[in-house]
Amino acid sequence: MCRLAAYLGEPLFLEELIAKPRHSLMRQSLRAEEAKIVTNGDGFGIGWYGEREQPGVYREVMPAWSDDNLLALSQTLSSRLFFAHVRAATAGGIARQNCHPFRWGRYLFMHNGQIGGYPLLRRSLEAQLPDELYGERRGGTDSELLFLLMLARMQAGTPAQDAVLQVLDETLALMRERSITAPLRFAAVLADGERLHAFRIASDAQPPTLYLRRCETGTIIASEPLCEDEPGWQMLPDGAVVTVEAGAAGVQMRRHEVGVTV
Amino acid sequence: MCRLAAYLGEPLFLEELIAKPRHSLMRQSLRAEEAKIVTNGDGFGIGWYGEREQPGVYREVMPAWSDDNLLALSQTLSSRLFFAHVRAATAGGIARQNCHPFRWGRYLFMHNGQIGGYPLLRRSLEAQLPDELYGERRGGTDSELLFLLMLARMQAGTPAQDAVLQVLDETLALMRERSITAPLRFAAVLADGERLHAFRIASDAQPPTLYLRRCETGTIIASEPLCEDEPGWQMLPDGAVVTVEAGAAGVQMRRHEVGVTV
Amino acid sequence: MCRLAAYLGEPLFLEELIAKPRHSLMRQSLRAEEAKIVTNGDGFGIGWYGEREQPGVYREVMPAWSDDNLLALSQTLSSRLFFAHVRAATAGGIARQNCHPFRWGRYLFMHNGQIGGYPLLRRSLEAQLPDELYGERRGGTDSELLFLLMLARMQAGTPAQDAVLQVLDETLALMRERSITAPLRFAAVLADGERLHAFRIASDAQPPTLYLRRCETGTIIASEPLCEDEPGWQMLPDGAVVTVEAGAAGVQMRRHEVGVTV
Amino acid sequence: MCRLAAYLGEPLFLEELIAKPRHSLMRQSLRAEEAKIVTNGDGFGIGWYGEREQPGVYREVMPAWSDDNLLALSQTLSSRLFFAHVRAATAGGIARQNCHPFRWGRYLFMHNGQIGGYPLLRRSLEAQLPDELYGERRGGTDSELLFLLMLARMQAGTPAQDAVLQVLDETLALMRERSITAPLRFAAVLADGERLHAFRIASDAQPPTLYLRRCETGTIIASEPLCEDEPGWQMLPDGAVVTVEAGAAGVQMRRHEVGVTV
Repeated sequence: MCRLAAYLGEPLFLEELIAKPRHSLMRQSLRAEEAKIVTNGDGFGIGWYGEREQPGVYREVMPAWSDDNLLALSQTLSSRLFFAHVRAATAGGIARQNCHPFRWGRYLFMHNGQIGGYPLLRRSLEAQLPDELYGERRGGTDSELLFLLMLARMQAGTPAQDAVLQVLDETLALMRERSITAPLRFAAVLADGERLHAFRIASDAQPPTLYLRRCETGTIIASEPLCEDEPGWQMLPDGAVVTVEAGAAGVQMRRHEVGVTV
Repeated sequence: MCRLAAYLGEPLFLEELIAKPRHSLMRQSLRAEEAKIVTNGDGFGIGWYGEREQPGVYREVMPAWSDDNLLALSQTLSSRLFFAHVRAATAGGIARQNCHPFRWGRYLFMHNGQIGGYPLLRRSLEAQLPDELYGERRGGTDSELLFLLMLARMQAGTPAQDAVLQVLDETLALMRERSITAPLRFAAVLADGERLHAFRIASDAQPPTLYLRRCETGTIIASEPLCEDEPGWQMLPDGAVVTVEAGAAGVQMRRHEVGVTV
Repeated sequence: MCRLAAYLGEPLFLEELIAKPRHSLMRQSLRAEEAKIVTNGDGFGIGWYGEREQPGVYREVMPAWSDDNLLALSQTLSSRLFFAHVRAATAGGIARQNCHPFRWGRYLFMHNGQIGGYPLLRRSLEAQLPDELYGERRGGTDSELLFLLMLARMQAGTPAQDAVLQVLDETLALMRERSITAPLRFAAVLADGERLHAFRIASDAQPPTLYLRRCETGTIIASEPLCEDEPGWQMLPDGAVVTVEAGAAGVQMRRHEVGVTV
Repeated sequence: MCRLAAYLGEPLFLEELIAKPRHSLMRQSLRAEEAKIVTNGDGFGIGWYGEREQPGVYREVMPAWSDDNLLALSQTLSSRLFFAHVRAATAGGIARQNCHPFRWGRYLFMHNGQIGGYPLLRRSLEAQLPDELYGERRGGTDSELLFLLMLARMQAGTPAQDAVLQVLDETLALMRERSITAPLRFAAVLADGERLHAFRIASDAQPPTLYLRRCETGTIIASEPLCEDEPGWQMLPDGAVVTVEAGAAGVQMRRHEVGVTV
C-alpha cells in the first residue's frame, strides 16, 4: 500500500506536491494517514514530462523523506505533467527496478494496490506477454507486470483506458478461475504525455483511497489530500475511471464495474 | 532519537535481539514505542566481537526493516558481545559515516540522544581533539565527535567510564558557558571487547529510555523492551552508569549527577 | 564477465582471499587481468557457511573496492567454506537481486559467463521451472535462472553435479534448436555446505578462466590467481568438472563435453 | 584524481556531454585516459542551472556508468550552464556528501586534484572558516573545505576568481610553513549561474589536465576531450585562470603563478 500523487496543468515545480504541502508526499512517506501501512519508506520515484516525448524518471531505494537528491530535483524541475510515488513494499524486494513510476517510451505508470494471490497467478499472467515485452521485466512486482500487460494491448491498438480495464477484468477472471478470494485492489495513474488516466477500482469494493482536486493551475490526483484544510479535495468513488486532458476544461469520469461477486 | 540494543554473555545469534523478538530492533526501526520519533529509518548498524580483538561492523543507510543483508547477517553471526542501532537522523545527513556503532581499534560506541546547541559548540569541541584523532572525523554527527573525545581521554589513560563522564561534564560546562538551554541527553553504550558500559544521563532529568534485562545467557541493554510481556525488563534510573563484565556474576551500577541547574 | 573466488578447508578469514592478496578479489574488481572486461564494479557478494546449515550472504550494488562493510566483514568472518564474487553486469540491471552468490536453503551458487541469446530463451527456460520455484525469481539475470533450474533438478533427487550438467546440456540443446550461434560460457561454483563443485565449460571451447590451488589449509578456486608468484595455481582445462569435499585428501576432476558443433 | 566537464552556452541536454560523446563523462568513469587513476567509480554528481537562482544537484555513490537515473536525467534536463563530475576517491570516504559538485546558494564548485599533506593541514584550514560556514562541513574531503574557504571570502566581498586564488595561495603558504613537499594540484570549475571560472594550477607545474573547446552553442571545459577526433580541443596551460561569461563573445584567460619553489 503505497502513496502517490500526479499533476497535469500549467508547469509547476515538483516541490509543490512533493515537498511543500503540510501533508506532502515526502511527509506521507514517513506518516500516511489513510493507508493501512503508515510508513512508505521502501523507495520512491518521480517521473516528469519535459521538452521531449520520453519522460524523465528518478527512482531510488532510500526513503523519500531523507533523500537530498529528491528535494533538490523537486525544487528545480518544473513540469506540466508529473508523477510521484512512495513505496511500502508488498510484492517484490527493495530495488530501483521495483520502484514506481514505470516508464516505457512515452508512458508512465504508477500503482497503489495489489493482485490477490499474485504468486499463484504470476506464471499465467507473464505467459500473456508478447515476446518483445516478456524480456522487459526488470523486477518482481505485480505492478510492473500489470503495466507490461497494458502496454501489450496498447501496442496492439487498444486505447489506454480500455487497455487498463481489460487487464483488470482478465486478471480478475483468472483469479476467479483459480478460486482466489483475496481481492484485487487498484488505485493507479497512467499517462502518455498529453493525457492522464486515474483509476480507483477493487473487486471487494474497498479500493485504496484516491482524491482529485482542481486547482488554479491544473488538476491533482493523490492518495491523500496534500493539505487537509485546502478546499476542493474530492474522493473518487469506487470504480472511478478518470481522464484529465491537457488544455481541456474539466475532467471526464466514468464508472467501471469489475463485477463484485456476492 | 534512535533506538539501540546491546548484549554481553554466552554467544548468541544476533537475530535473537535484532530480528526475532516481537518488538525486535528491526521492528523498532519501523515503529518505536517509547521514542518521540516513531520511525527510525535513517540507516542502521551492527557491531560484534568475534575471534579477533577488533570487532566487525556493518552499517548501511537503508532502513533496517527492509535490509536483506542485515537479516542474513543476524541469522549467521553469533557473538558474545554485540551492538545494534537504528537511526532517526537529527544532526548529520544520511551516510554510512553517520551510522552507529562507531568503531576505533577494539572499541565500539553507539548513542541515542543529542548535544543541545551542537552547531554552536562543534568548533570548540573539535578543537579539543588531539591531532591524531582530529583527522578521523568521517561524518557530521555529534555522536561521532563525542566518541572521539572519549577516545582521546582513554588514549591518555583514563578508564573508559570516567572518560565518558568527563566528556559529558565538560560538554555540559561548555553549554552553560554559552548559555545554551537545550538539554544534553545521552543514552549510550561503549564496549572494549570485555566490558560493556551503559549510560542514561540528561541535563534536564529526561534522558532517553534505557532498559536492562538479565536473561539466561547474559545481559541485554535496550532502548525499549524487546518483548513487552517478557519478565525482568528494568528501566535504568536517570543518571545510571552501568558496567557489565564478561564472566561476572552481576552488573555494577552507579549514579552520575550531571548537575541539573534549576 | 565477472570474477569469483571460493574456498573449502580449515577455517580461514575471508580477507585472505578477498582483501589481502596482491591480486585479491577486491583488487580484481578494479582491475581484472584475464577478463575481457577489466572493471568489475557492478556490485559484489559474499557467502559463507558458519554454525548453521543455511549460509550467510552479503550482497551490495557498490563496487567491492570501496565498500567498508565488505572489508570489515572479511576481516571478522572466518569460515571453512566461502564464496566471493565481483560483478560486471551483462544481463540484468544493477540490483542486489542480480548480485552473486545466490542462496537457496543450504545451497550457494555463483557464475561467470553467459547464455548466448538469453533474451530469446528466457521464456522457454522459465517455463521449465516448477511452480514453487517460478515465483522465486527476484532479478533478471541468466545466472539466477540457471540456479533455479538446477535447484528444480536437485529437489527432484538429481545429484548436484549432474543437475548442473543437465541444465547446461538442455540449455545448449534449446540454443541449437533456436539456431543461436552465440556461445554458452560457464565458469561457476556450487556448494551445499559440505562439497564444492566447480565448472569450466563452454560451447565454443572458450570458457572463462578458472584456476585451482591446493594450499596448506585447503583448496581455492578462482577466476585469476590471487597472487601471481604464488606456486601451484593450475588452470582448469576446458570442460573441467571439479568436486572438492570437506576432509577429503584431493579433488576429483572429470571432463564434460557439451558437444562443440563444428 | 577525478574527471569533470562543464558547459555554458545555449541550452543543451546534459547527455551531450555526459552520455553521448564517444569519450563521454560516463565512459570516462569506467576508463579515463589522461588520469593516473583509470577508474572513476567512487560516485559522481551533476549540477545545473534552470529557472531559479539556486541550481539543481544530483549526487550518488554508485559509479556513473551504471546509474539509470543519471542517464534518464541527462536525457531530460537541458540547461545553459551545467557541471558533471566522476570521482576517484583520494581523501574522504564514499558518501554523497563527498561527491562533487558542491552547492551553496547560487554557487557550484567541482574539483580534480588534491592538497598535499591535507591531514596535517585540515585543522588549520578549518580554523579559518567563519562560524556560519564551519558547521556546513558535511563530509571529509579537501575539496569541500576549499569550497567553504572560497565562500568565506566571497561572502566578505571578494570577487569569485580572486577568492579562489587567495585560498590557493594561502593554502600553499601554509604547506610551505609546515614543510610539506607533496604538491597542491588544482583543476577546478566554479560557477554562479552567470559566469564559469576554470582553473588549472599546481605547485609542481603538473596540474591535472583541463581542456577547453568552443563549440557552436557554447563553451565546454573538460578533463579530457569528449571526442578525440573533434577539432578545437585546447589544453589549458599550467596556471590558467579562465572566465566564461554568458552572452560574451570569447573567453578571458590569465595566468596565475603559485610560486613554484625550486
